[in-house]
Amino acid sequence: MISVVLLGTGNVSTHLLAAFNAAQNVQVVQVYGRSKAALQRMAKDVPYTSNLNELMEAAVYVLAISDDQIADVANQIGNKNALLVHTSGTQPLSVLKKHSRRGIFYPLQTFSPGMQLNFNKIPMCLEVANHKDRPLLEDLARAISQKVYFMDSLKRKKIHLAAVFVNNFTNHLYHLGEDICNRNELPFDMLHPLIEETAKKIKSMRPIEAQTGPARRNDQQTIKQQESQLAEIPLELYTLFTASIKKTYE
Amino acid sequence: MISVVLLGTGNVSTHLLAAFNAAQNVQVVQVYGRSKAALQRMAKDVPYTSNLNELMEAAVYVLAISDDQIADVANQIGNKNALLVHTSGTQPLSVLKKHSRRGIFYPLQTFSPGMQLNFNKIPMCLEVANHKDRPLLEDLARAISQKVYFMDSLKRKKIHLAAVFVNNFTNHLYHLGEDICNRNELPFDMLHPLIEETAKKIKSMRPIEAQTGPARRNDQQTIKQQESQLAEIPLELYTLFTASIKKTYE
Repeated sequence: MISVVLLGTGNVSTHLLAAFNAAQNVQVVQVYGRSKAALQRMAKDVPYTSNLNELMEAAVYVLAISDDQIADVANQIGNKNALLVHTSGTQPLSVLKKHSRRGIFYPLQTFSPGMQLNFNKIPMCLEVANHKDRPLLEDLARAISQKVYFMDSLKRKKIHLAAVFVNNFTNHLYHLGEDICNRNELPFDMLHPLIEETAKKIKSMRPIEAQTGPARRNDQQTIKQQESQLAEIPLELYTLFTASIKKTYE
Repeated sequence: MISVVLLGTGNVSTHLLAAFNAAQNVQVVQVYGRSKAALQRMAKDVPYTSNLNELMEAAVYVLAISDDQIADVANQIGNKNALLVHTSGTQPLSVLKKHSRRGIFYPLQTFSPGMQLNFNKIPMCLEVANHKDRPLLEDLARAISQKVYFMDSLKRKKIHLAAVFVNNFTNHLYHLGEDICNRNELPFDMLHPLIEETAKKIKSMRPIEAQTGPARRNDQQTIKQQESQLAEIPLELYTLFTASIKKTYE
């Protein structure tokens, strides 16, 4: 049984608590958060505290808090003979430098309130400062996911960068698509099957092979006609995407 | 029973043939294509021809051919007392102007060889020049899909433009994500669950609410660090997306 103190009351922490609670060999012994209301909502069957001096003993402390708070919170935690990890895709291991047994426990997924997630398939990107901590962190990750990857901070930065493209930027394209629909009194859910299929395709063919559309065909007539319909920022994106797709297939 | 002559041997035509064959009240009486090899592959139990002068009689002629061939093929088809439709998202109704009974039969989906598709959920965007043809085209669409929309060519252009954003451009982001993975010896399938979840989210929350990431948080430190990792074109896209997301939430 791996005992865990979970720090944070946001989306990542809430989803991790559910996953740890569902795992057989993990016990979350305490949740820490600044907001009592958030703690009460989240930690129904688990002791909680808003005082970093009252943290219970555990094998692993998981800091699932926003990037800009990690160093501050880590520095306030007293020295413990335990592994301290954060869940950020971008923050280096060194933000936890006060603690000799430190690591990364980064779930590569987008977390939103109320969305059910199958943690089992979420890639867990792990790193430890001390190789002796590797089995412990691996066991904790395998308790909730089948996809466990050890990688250094440089590679983690790269996978996070790739994630920004396929998640954050893709979602913004969905927003721009919805915006075009709204302006023209078309229901956005008309685009749902297309969005779903576009995402599904990558499982059976590479994106470079799945590419279709006016830019792929270099269909100048359609490109010009579509450019004429767009406002400034979507137009810049349209033009840049068109150039980037053309260049990819040159 | 609606009799159909299907023109074209590409992805759209191949998928339409399968959908029409599965429908109870549609009979594809003939397939037309220029390539005998493609016809033999595709039209296993259906008569086919490569001669536009040998088209059989039917209630509807469906031109599922590439945009730049529609006008040419339509002009070569003799006058028939039948409805002639094309399947393009961008071409106007007027490219079929030789035929008084003309219309649009545009399935809003991305079609690739070998991908199984559930046509039932694919939005069918319809238009007819003569309102008397409306019930016939609606019946044909409802035979294969539950989602049937009549719209004029202007709205069809808008939904096609939105589709370019959520499908073509999104797929290119997947490619850029894969490219970052490949350059750093990371498996692209690590990103599959994230891509899937990003697409799934739009069913339960609006993209504008689902947006996360450094640009959404206006996290300058991460943005600068990520910009420093990118080559020219992905960098331009990164910067433009970051500006566009920031502006959306201003």
